[in-house]
Amino acid sequence: MQTDKVFQMSASNIRFGEGCTSEIGMDLRALDVRRTMVLLDPGLKSLPIAEVVRDSLKQQQIDFEIFDEISVEPTDASFQHAAAVAAAGGFDSFVAVGGGSTIDTAKAANLYATWPAEFRRYVNAPIGDGQPVPGPLKPLIAVPTTAGTGSETTGVAVFDFTAQKAKTGIASRYLKPTLGIIDSNNTRSLPPAVAASSGLDVLSHALESYTALPFDQRPKPASPSLRPAYQGANPISDLWCLHALELMGEYLPRAFADPSDDEARSNMLLASAIAGIGFGNAGVHLPHAMSYPVAGMVKGFRPKGFDVDHDMVPHGMSVILSTPAVVRFTAASCPQRHLRAAAALGADVSNANPSDAGNVLADRVIHFMKRMDMPNGLAAVGYTATQIPDLVAGTLPQQRLTKLSPSPVHESVLTSLFQESLKLW
Amino acid sequence: MQTDKVFQMSASNIRFGEGCTSEIGMDLRALDVRRTMVLLDPGLKSLPIAEVVRDSLKQQQIDFEIFDEISVEPTDASFQHAAAVAAAGGFDSFVAVGGGSTIDTAKAANLYATWPAEFRRYVNAPIGDGQPVPGPLKPLIAVPTTAGTGSETTGVAVFDFTAQKAKTGIASRYLKPTLGIIDSNNTRSLPPAVAASSGLDVLSHALESYTALPFDQRPKPASPSLRPAYQGANPISDLWCLHALELMGEYLPRAFADPSDDEARSNMLLASAIAGIGFGNAGVHLPHAMSYPVAGMVKGFRPKGFDVDHDMVPHGMSVILSTPAVVRFTAASCPQRHLRAAAALGADVSNANPSDAGNVLADRVIHFMKRMDMPNGLAAVGYTATQIPDLVAGTLPQQRLTKLSPSPVHESVLTSLFQESLKLW
Ligand SMILES: NC(=O)c1ccc[n+]([C@@H]2O[C@H](COP(=O)([O-])OP(=O)(O)OC[C@H]3O[C@@H](n4cnc5c(N)ncnc54)[C@H](O)[C@@H]3O)[C@@H](O)[C@H]2O)c1
Ligand SMILES: NC(=O)c1ccc[n+]([C@@H]2O[C@H](COP(=O)([O-])OP(=O)(O)OC[C@H]3O[C@@H](n4cnc5c(N)ncnc54)[C@H](O)[C@@H]3O)[C@@H](O)[C@H]2O)c1
Repeated sequence: MQTDKVFQMSASNIRFGEGCTSEIGMDLRALDVRRTMVLLDPGLKSLPIAEVVRDSLKQQQIDFEIFDEISVEPTDASFQHAAAVAAAGGFDSFVAVGGGSTIDTAKAANLYATWPAEFRRYVNAPIGDGQPVPGPLKPLIAVPTTAGTGSETTGVAVFDFTAQKAKTGIASRYLKPTLGIIDSNNTRSLPPAVAASSGLDVLSHALESYTALPFDQRPKPASPSLRPAYQGANPISDLWCLHALELMGEYLPRAFADPSDDEARSNMLLASAIAGIGFGNAGVHLPHAMSYPVAGMVKGFRPKGFDVDHDMVPHGMSVILSTPAVVRFTAASCPQRHLRAAAALGADVSNANPSDAGNVLADRVIHFMKRMDMPNGLAAVGYTATQIPDLVAGTLPQQRLTKLSPSPVHESVLTSLFQESLKLW
Repeated sequence: MQTDKVFQMSASNIRFGEGCTSEIGMDLRALDVRRTMVLLDPGLKSLPIAEVVRDSLKQQQIDFEIFDEISVEPTDASFQHAAAVAAAGGFDSFVAVGGGSTIDTAKAANLYATWPAEFRRYVNAPIGDGQPVPGPLKPLIAVPTTAGTGSETTGVAVFDFTAQKAKTGIASRYLKPTLGIIDSNNTRSLPPAVAASSGLDVLSHALESYTALPFDQRPKPASPSLRPAYQGANPISDLWCLHALELMGEYLPRAFADPSDDEARSNMLLASAIAGIGFGNAGVHLPHAMSYPVAGMVKGFRPKGFDVDHDMVPHGMSVILSTPAVVRFTAASCPQRHLRAAAALGADVSNANPSDAGNVLADRVIHFMKRMDMPNGLAAVGYTATQIPDLVAGTLPQQRLTKLSPSPVHESVLTSLFQESLKLW
């Protein structure tokens, strides 16, 4: 008997298991679709995953076209280009094969092809108009190849609004993929630098959701449909996030050190999806809010190990750089949670005082940053103290995130957080 | 500022929070429905919850009719009666307010009104034809008033097939409610006997899913759509189930002892939904399979504290009665899991040997049974040794469940399990 190595969490429709990517053609067939746009990370074109997907679609006689003009860390222009191709191609379904950049591009292409509108319309306020997406989109199956953004589980698509020099996003439950196919075969080729940066993004998702303002400390909405997806920490997201932190603490260093460690890679993908469901139902706060201007205003930095033709700070790196300063600041609001998170990440907290919680957790985060070869603070990716007012100005509009900080923030707080983040050790 | 006491896990669409039942009218309005069939447990007609639901629907000008001809432990006849009313009434939406009996009746009414068919058609094989439900049903919002079956999160509807003297069910992801509204105000009136029986059902869901055959030991299906919902224990259901056991161990005795203990009731509802998601994605095995003939063949037993006009063994009671014998039998297949489950339920396992795992866990289950005034074995609900062959014959067709046992079962195993379950202490 050949045993099944696959299981599915049908609630949020994610399927896990080595080799399960080859089922994608049958999934599209079951959805009764006719013509599929396959958005493929250009770095994967000649890797086995591209062949597995193509073969599976052909075997089920799905008519498809491959689109690989994906920008790493997408922009409004790259989103709109993909949307134009989607609209012109008469597609009734989408497949995304790649990291967060590719999956987010597929969400945007699906959105604007299904519900055409001026681009700003669905972009989060105050940067965009923040209008609700009117209804369901076409089916999208997401196959993540990083571990990772958790974008296969979320209703969020993030991009650089180039003209505004700001990173922002589109958020709607309708953006959530129909199915996420999570297969550890697909991360074997991940360069260690990408594994490190995307892995620290998982750490941030779990940590920020776990320490976010609790759901019962947020204003009551006038109707249930106005309750935000980023609703704050709650007993269910806590469960996801603590477990993701435990998996991270154990498997991220292994996956980074040895890309052939199947067990480590598989558990990192599990952690990534679990943290995705966690933050999708709780929200992220200051490290993500502060990362957006860090990524948006970068000049003169190109990360080692990334194959890019423009200056950029990878998303996970931009988030983790401010995390130590943030947790030192937020610890006072809920020291026990900060200690519990440090313990989940493997720190020994048996002798820690509540008043030490911020330092204990910050030290643990720095421990992972050093092991993953992260730069030593914002200065190491090109920022100087003179740019802090601009970084603060770029953070303030991210109210959807900053209001989830468990300790209230204002300009002067952000200023010191950026200052402390220039150099970390 | 009035703070929100509510949060939602949008992945499986369950909303938690004291008082959130009053939002139901707005939810129906947002679904753009015109006419709603409200299935209401007859025992709740004159309780505050009925008024809360009626007021909320009226306030949003939803046209609705109340149907309260629900059988406790429904039958094929009571399902079909509700379906006939649903079909005749021209409803485009359903609300279920009650325990598992009411929610399951609503699922069946929605199914047969939406996709009319001979009754056997969708009933699980081999008792029914086991044909797949052809497509989506109309929206159903489920408001559980017991803690509980978790039916608000599952795609299952269970009933007594009277002519066949067998309990069985209908299973399809399309049966899953659109939204579960989980409000601890709604269990305050629960009689302790119902709290005990339905609470031990939660324990069984979590324990059986956690000890079920692991997902990667089941045959690989020919296509992903043939992968069963009851797919075996897996890393995500494990997370749900262990946490449900922890909540159970702490809060079930409190909720039983003092129905005004809001914290205990609220955590029991959380445990019930969490265990529901757990077993909905993993499955239950022998205790549930064996409970079906126990419930189906009952004669001469009426449970204290239940307001019923016919012989019956409440579902949770029928399941827990065989649990001690089953865990003693299954422990050898995975002693560590059995010990871990006992520990989650609050047992001290620090000195336990793997070879003791079955007894340690059985003792812990019996500890809760005694505290909840459960009968001492099958003999105490009217069964004698001479009926065991019939009970075994009634269990064998439940292959969907028996095949998830972590240790293979056949007739002689079932015979001894029933024998050991006649008297427990
Ligand atoms: N939608 C969400 O919920 C969400 C959450 C967090 C982050 N994001 C966004 O996702 C983006 C980052 O995504 P990411 O971290 O997954 O990386 P990515 O998609 O930007 O990819 C990074 C690099 O890794 C390469 N790569 C990806 N998978 C590979 C593989 N298996 N083998 C070899 N090379 C591979 C890509 O070609 C690229 O050069 C950012 O724009 C970020 O803002 C979105
Ligand atoms: N669909 C599923 O996933 C699933 C799972 C497990 C069990 N079940 C089925 O659910 C049924 C059992 O459901 P249950 O255990 O929730 O009980 P129930 O719905 O049968 O109700 C039991 C009794 O409690 C009363 N009651 C319920 N809520 C009350 C309240 N708040 N206040 C006062 N009285 C109240 C009812 O009137 C009834 O007399 C069985 O048929 C069982 O097979 C279904």
